[in-house]
Amino acid sequence: MTTPFSQTRIDQLLHDMEIDDLNHASIRQIGAIARTMEQETGQEYIHFEMGIPGLPPSAIGVEAEIDALRRGVASKYPDIEGIADLKTEASRFVKAFINTDIAPKGCIPTTGSMQGVFAAFMLCTQLDPSRDTILYLDPGFPVQKMQAAVIGARTASFDVADHRGADALRAKLEQMLSSGRICCLIYSNPNNPSWMCLTDDELRVIGELATKYDVVVIEDLAYMTMDFRRPLGRPYQPPFQPTVSRYTDNYILMLSGSKMFSYAGQRIAVACISDTLFHRSYPTLAARYGISRFGAAYAYDMLYTLSSGVSHSAQCALAAMMRAATDGRYAFVDDVREYARRTARIKDIMLAHGFNITYDRDLDEPVSDGLFFTIGYHDMEGGTLLRQLLYHGITGIVLSTTGSTRQGIRACCSTMQEHHYPLLDQRCRLFAQNNPV
Amino acid sequence: MTTPFSQTRIDQLLHDMEIDDLNHASIRQIGAIARTMEQETGQEYIHFEMGIPGLPPSAIGVEAEIDALRRGVASKYPDIEGIADLKTEASRFVKAFINTDIAPKGCIPTTGSMQGVFAAFMLCTQLDPSRDTILYLDPGFPVQKMQAAVIGARTASFDVADHRGADALRAKLEQMLSSGRICCLIYSNPNNPSWMCLTDDELRVIGELATKYDVVVIEDLAYMTMDFRRPLGRPYQPPFQPTVSRYTDNYILMLSGSKMFSYAGQRIAVACISDTLFHRSYPTLAARYGISRFGAAYAYDMLYTLSSGVSHSAQCALAAMMRAATDGRYAFVDDVREYARRTARIKDIMLAHGFNITYDRDLDEPVSDGLFFTIGYHDMEGGTLLRQLLYHGITGIVLSTTGSTRQGIRACCSTMQEHHYPLLDQRCRLFAQNNPV
Repeated sequence: MTTPFSQTRIDQLLHDMEIDDLNHASIRQIGAIARTMEQETGQEYIHFEMGIPGLPPSAIGVEAEIDALRRGVASKYPDIEGIADLKTEASRFVKAFINTDIAPKGCIPTTGSMQGVFAAFMLCTQLDPSRDTILYLDPGFPVQKMQAAVIGARTASFDVADHRGADALRAKLEQMLSSGRICCLIYSNPNNPSWMCLTDDELRVIGELATKYDVVVIEDLAYMTMDFRRPLGRPYQPPFQPTVSRYTDNYILMLSGSKMFSYAGQRIAVACISDTLFHRSYPTLAARYGISRFGAAYAYDMLYTLSSGVSHSAQCALAAMMRAATDGRYAFVDDVREYARRTARIKDIMLAHGFNITYDRDLDEPVSDGLFFTIGYHDMEGGTLLRQLLYHGITGIVLSTTGSTRQGIRACCSTMQEHHYPLLDQRCRLFAQNNPV
Repeated sequence: MTTPFSQTRIDQLLHDMEIDDLNHASIRQIGAIARTMEQETGQEYIHFEMGIPGLPPSAIGVEAEIDALRRGVASKYPDIEGIADLKTEASRFVKAFINTDIAPKGCIPTTGSMQGVFAAFMLCTQLDPSRDTILYLDPGFPVQKMQAAVIGARTASFDVADHRGADALRAKLEQMLSSGRICCLIYSNPNNPSWMCLTDDELRVIGELATKYDVVVIEDLAYMTMDFRRPLGRPYQPPFQPTVSRYTDNYILMLSGSKMFSYAGQRIAVACISDTLFHRSYPTLAARYGISRFGAAYAYDMLYTLSSGVSHSAQCALAAMMRAATDGRYAFVDDVREYARRTARIKDIMLAHGFNITYDRDLDEPVSDGLFFTIGYHDMEGGTLLRQLLYHGITGIVLSTTGSTRQGIRACCSTMQEHHYPLLDQRCRLFAQNNPV
């Protein structure tokens, strides 16, 4: 079998990194292998592994950040609860695009949603000693599982694709939550990696059971409004981003600037805590920190000890981008729609060469094209598939690392440039020849 | 007793915040009380409570950060190990001002030293299940104790002022470390709050015992070169910043941009891990993360899950500031020497009215003037003293919150402006009249 990149060399690199099975390789490790091969051969990989913005950063954000630096904010510790302007704008943004009311007080900047989720996991696992488990509605973002390993929290999970629809989801969630050990649950919507979108019926089930079992829902909205089948993202106009916040008071919405505004480099996001949860008192917190309220402990114990607040200028940038979006001056959804166009083209090419979409259905309709998608090849096992793809100059991560029960890889379209499409076509054709069914 | 601010109102605010005893009040809470009183009365407080930069941010940093933003870094996730330029410059800076060799690989940016220390505590407490305790060489920064509470780590501490000199320190450290439960120890040098500076003899003891008992030393150099009694801070010229790194391989140096370069708002620092520790393998880490080496786990498990890296533009700023300092184009120590001038004037005023310096001696010489200092009033208990000071329009934090065994308050000179000195004089005079000995 002839492949564009040396099988022997790739196998050796994997061996050197102690990766026998690609089901145990991280995003960063796979990226490192591809970069090494690129340096050694001068040949380019098609990088599907990392979920990075493939667009320039929002100019509104950049200009606001530069203005803030010129004003001298670099020397001034920002308030731990966030600068007032960002808190106000986040509250307005949530109202405009999600149609949910959250007071500015509860909108707290974080060093990316990575920090927002870490802090939420840390706090939720400390609320009640008998509730020590984080529930993941998989497939999901692998690093959020690594966060539990770092914290030392127990985890539970199921592949939500096997339990779609309100009835099936209710049955599964009842089974999981009735253990009484779940303190919080997390999912992203649209879903990373599959781009499935939970419906209002399903979100209602999650919300009702979160209330019933007193579980905090962490709704990761990193890709909010990017269900491109619907006309989302028009301020104050329906349809709005579907959300669990309509159906329970036990929630934190994680809004990230990374993908919506292509602002990943500055590590800026906002954790939006429901008014009810924000003000709720926990005796466990009072005993441990001398602060009983959830929202205060989130800011003054978690975020304070994690990084003493968030880059001052980046907060100014996010405030400006949110304000422009809410005021209708910045149609960010039009910008990120580019991802759907790229993914559609990639899927066309790969399907023509015998690949399939691993998670292809969203209840009764095809999944939206978006930033991430999932690819399988007949019945090839996921780790084997990724190894073969690496030989053929294409990266990705194995779906098993996302908690998926299916065989395939997660791919991200963001690094695709025009010259990559014919290259992808050529490599997929060779892949199919080398791997006849 | 007549005081500039209403005793009744202050007592009420404290009561509303559930603070009966100022020995249990945090920096942020005291700041909040003072701000409330300022709003209600229109009268200004003298803010000694918070350790914030009182100087404009380094122009070199600001310009470099603006340039980076113009280049479009805002959309690009920085490498988890840090951008190459900052890693190289941090390694050079450490050599130039500390005369220690650390490879760029081991110089890893963090979202302020707050994150750097959090990640170090997290990782060190996971190296060996039988070593679960963090040792603090007090007095120290209260939030570093809060970090242990958040993580759920055990703590031990002693007031280093009670064990100064190599022999006394060795005896005390032997006693503490021989328990076998200490995984890491932390101190700041110069010391926050007292500005005591550990000598080379003392640092040698710490280093030797860290090696003997296999303990990681976290040396917080937030105020490095700010022992203004010595001509520190001239690149590649002795005397160099004293450091434990000459006496052990078990160390992480925490270098922060916040005070050295007045860059606190951007949350940028570098954790510099010794080459030996960086490459050391731990079976516990391999089992938990599939990564065995300390340095790799610090970056790819701790920092990755904590915030997915550090603001891209702030890394560019710190790289530029360090390069300019190392190249001799930016005499940052001359800028921060302003703190010593302010502290000297404050001390003169307060000593004239019967106050004393709580930690006044550094072995056989007076402590350096610097950013922080410690103030007592005859034999008045620390919590009582702070309450009296609040009545008289002066803030601070009680030394007990720093792990101190002495009665007094920690004060920071950074917010002092010219018109504050006569105000301080007037208020201290009234304080002395109201509190006759």
